[in-house]
Amino acid sequence: MLREQQLDSLLITHLPNVRYLCGFTGSAGVLAVAVSSKSHKWAFFTDGRYTQQARDEVSGAKVVIPRAPALSAAVEWLRSQGRSHRIGIEAEHVSVATHRSLSKLGSALKLQLTSGLVERLRAVKEPTEVKQIRAAVNLASSVFEAVLPEIKPGTKETAIAAEIEYMSRRLGAQGMSFETLVASGKRSALPHGLASQNPLPERGFVILDFGVILGGYCSDMTRTVHLGRAGQAERKMYRAVLEAQLAGIKAVSPGAKCSEVDNATRKVLEKAGLGRYFTHSTGHGVGIEIHEVPGIRKAAKVAKNSRKRQKRTQKQGGTQLDTLQPGMVITIEPGVYIPGKGGVRIEDMVLVTETGCEVLTPTPKEMIVI
Amino acid sequence: MLREQQLDSLLITHLPNVRYLCGFTGSAGVLAVAVSSKSHKWAFFTDGRYTQQARDEVSGAKVVIPRAPALSAAVEWLRSQGRSHRIGIEAEHVSVATHRSLSKLGSALKLQLTSGLVERLRAVKEPTEVKQIRAAVNLASSVFEAVLPEIKPGTKETAIAAEIEYMSRRLGAQGMSFETLVASGKRSALPHGLASQNPLPERGFVILDFGVILGGYCSDMTRTVHLGRAGQAERKMYRAVLEAQLAGIKAVSPGAKCSEVDNATRKVLEKAGLGRYFTHSTGHGVGIEIHEVPGIRKAAKVAKNSRKRQKRTQKQGGTQLDTLQPGMVITIEPGVYIPGKGGVRIEDMVLVTETGCEVLTPTPKEMIVI
Repeated sequence: MLREQQLDSLLITHLPNVRYLCGFTGSAGVLAVAVSSKSHKWAFFTDGRYTQQARDEVSGAKVVIPRAPALSAAVEWLRSQGRSHRIGIEAEHVSVATHRSLSKLGSALKLQLTSGLVERLRAVKEPTEVKQIRAAVNLASSVFEAVLPEIKPGTKETAIAAEIEYMSRRLGAQGMSFETLVASGKRSALPHGLASQNPLPERGFVILDFGVILGGYCSDMTRTVHLGRAGQAERKMYRAVLEAQLAGIKAVSPGAKCSEVDNATRKVLEKAGLGRYFTHSTGHGVGIEIHEVPGIRKAAKVAKNSRKRQKRTQKQGGTQLDTLQPGMVITIEPGVYIPGKGGVRIEDMVLVTETGCEVLTPTPKEMIVI
Repeated sequence: MLREQQLDSLLITHLPNVRYLCGFTGSAGVLAVAVSSKSHKWAFFTDGRYTQQARDEVSGAKVVIPRAPALSAAVEWLRSQGRSHRIGIEAEHVSVATHRSLSKLGSALKLQLTSGLVERLRAVKEPTEVKQIRAAVNLASSVFEAVLPEIKPGTKETAIAAEIEYMSRRLGAQGMSFETLVASGKRSALPHGLASQNPLPERGFVILDFGVILGGYCSDMTRTVHLGRAGQAERKMYRAVLEAQLAGIKAVSPGAKCSEVDNATRKVLEKAGLGRYFTHSTGHGVGIEIHEVPGIRKAAKVAKNSRKRQKRTQKQGGTQLDTLQPGMVITIEPGVYIPGKGGVRIEDMVLVTETGCEVLTPTPKEMIVI
């Protein structure tokens, strides 16, 4: 990819990309690769807080603890390698201010914007990564099972979130992959309802959406349970979301377009007359980050005269990927949110395989009434 | 500040700045201000997920839920106000990719890089903010006291972290202000040691560094305890760090240079022959974010011919602030880390007052041997 774009070198500053390529898990550092016709040279730059950790963790790159800031030290190193004429930088992850200060480091140095280069590699998981993700998914599913008895009227949403997070930690999670969502009653109509101080109601839906980080990899799951007797409308709503979710999973296979998978869930909800209450996309990639490519959503509308530009963008990298490939791990998570009433979302993690897909999340999806 | 820099308008995209200025706490949105000789006009742009929340939270700005992406809608609005000729953007928080797409929105539109404008306002806390910070600090101190009995040989570091986070949540924290650090035995020599699966040893230091978020404001504290009998070397090391920390606090007063405070802690450790094991800066500002200006560190060395540029940068904003002012809240956290042996860090939060300073953290600092 680097040679295709005629780059002399690449500066990797986005930490999940750094971790992916060399294993460093700390909070500050720059990985530099000097392109060579034979074998590339790699060097990793961080600061004194991470001397020992970098030596323990980094593989495939020499570790440097410079006196200067890591980024300028990295540029200096590329210069010493004679690879500073076309330096690729990660356009989505470098601030305008950093770009400016890099530009000032020398006039012979030319910065080239790249987009999603490492992210595209990361989208297809290697077997060891799938194993880590599977472990994270299973841990979260055990947490869900363990927390179910705590879900009862009167308990605060934050208390449920606290239990989820505590059990996750106790089972070995490094942390949560995002802020835990617990949204009950009318709040279940919020697609992004952070746990509030509200007590769970006597009757109504409760959406639980959470994920853990284990071995550096994220999980993501959502289940919706119902407190008290569920009426016909609630049952119908739940069934429609479940059918949409199953239709989405059925559409997942190598070669399928992401927009087709999105369309599969959307069509079911439209047929049930609930289409306009499904206000987000069907899913997203998951890995070192909780939101990765590909996005499982409608294809962006492209005006005719911008096709050319789009093609160019794709050649340069481009963050979105259109088509599913074996090894991708994505979520399938349709939802329905009726303002003033409530909502339902069901979410699994799914691995794209050579022949179709495998649902990683083992938790049952039949409606649970408590 | 906006008029000083001859800006027509400012786009605020960094979410902590957005929150500071208008109260919105969600995960996506842009605040725009159109400068006027009389009173500025403010508008806030977000998406459909946050319609209700934005209406509930935002004050001082009209709320817009556009069809277009928030950022381009904000630019469109500035144009409609005739204030799009010199639009300020936050250089540290806008990616090169976003900058590029903004530039394409129109040729009459001129983007002006700004640096740390809102951050400088945020550095000096208002009384209501100090009250929130005080509450967060006190909550974390109660958590430390409650978790002490759990610290014993054989317990995993992650289990201690789990207890800290669970108790924080139970006491009402919205979450942790950063990943909890629990580093024991040899791992205590890692200045940034995330809790691992290692069991606490029979003998050795345990560094606990954590913070909570309460009412949107962060706390940050570190204490180091010793498991088993502490030898002379350990006691000496602990005493040196404590003396350095007290010297740092003593140096905090309005008008003091940040580099002087840094120097005060460093000198004590150098005198004790431990200077080279103190590998990070003395502290940092804390508020809506866990790391804010000012940085309590050595002054950057400035070459003679770049003085002019530096002056210009300071006029434009500039993120670092050199001098302490009443209302600033900072950490004082020297540490000593001896590879292969262990480390000690002691950290309080300190408020700069009109006459000197007030240590906010109520937890005692004498060495605890368990």
